[in-house]
Amino acid sequence: MEKKAIQDYYTEDFAHCYGCGKLNEGGLKLKSYWDGNESIARFRPKWYHIAFPGYVYGGLIASLIDCHGTGTAAAAAYKLVGREMGSEPLLRYVTASIRVDFKKPTPIDQELFLVGSVKKITEKKVIVSIELTVNGVLCAQGEVVAVKIPDNFLS
Amino acid sequence: MEKKAIQDYYTEDFAHCYGCGKLNEGGLKLKSYWDGNESIARFRPKWYHIAFPGYVYGGLIASLIDCHGTGTAAAAAYKLVGREMGSEPLLRYVTASIRVDFKKPTPIDQELFLVGSVKKITEKKVIVSIELTVNGVLCAQGEVVAVKIPDNFLS
Repeated sequence: MEKKAIQDYYTEDFAHCYGCGKLNEGGLKLKSYWDGNESIARFRPKWYHIAFPGYVYGGLIASLIDCHGTGTAAAAAYKLVGREMGSEPLLRYVTASIRVDFKKPTPIDQELFLVGSVKKITEKKVIVSIELTVNGVLCAQGEVVAVKIPDNFLS
Repeated sequence: MEKKAIQDYYTEDFAHCYGCGKLNEGGLKLKSYWDGNESIARFRPKWYHIAFPGYVYGGLIASLIDCHGTGTAAAAAYKLVGREMGSEPLLRYVTASIRVDFKKPTPIDQELFLVGSVKKITEKKVIVSIELTVNGVLCAQGEVVAVKIPDNFLS
């Protein structure tokens, strides 16, 4: 597993995200790592991230899958062109669409483990498939369609 | 528009959700209302719900669509059988799957407006389509497949 998180390569403009920005003090600060041909992330929910007492609410799961998906997309794009992660011009992705299938209630007192794999990659679009498991049990299956941020995205 | 929020009919077991539970002090406390043939909700993001400075992160949008979807499903199920919202036996729904298409960056300094409509309803399943707009501009389009909670769901 690579030691530096994908999100730690993000420039300051992209480091404020509630889900994965290292500069968002109130946020989730998800960290994704490249590992072989996959990306992985681990997350420990807070007590208040509940749907029903004892179980994680779906919005948190969608948030983690979203940020893990866009991070995986960026890392995969750099690998595709053989460039070092974070090098300029920046390759950053936003979510065009997300789908999550909830397979089982997700316990809140355990570590959530996400594994992302690239289903399809082109210059402008990456489709990432993500499994969220708890102690080896599949709790949610997600897919993120991530698109390369155009230069005028925030203008 | 009906004056009492759909979530205010939820029993205590179902009132802890981070997205819409009135008893979750740290949560979003989304309130959905039935209005004619649709359900509506309004939400004002906090400053930290950002993706990039000035714009809402996708996980919040997915969370709102999720909770608005399950609330709409419950209300629609009661209406279908002509029973008063909240009457027993309880009709409550959980999300089996969610899909969100992000159409435009969503500004964080405005009110988000959600409108839900029932695409399909059977005894066990409700499919809810949800549009999220800001000042009349469509920012996200979602679909929630909500399933009736079986008696043994949390056992």
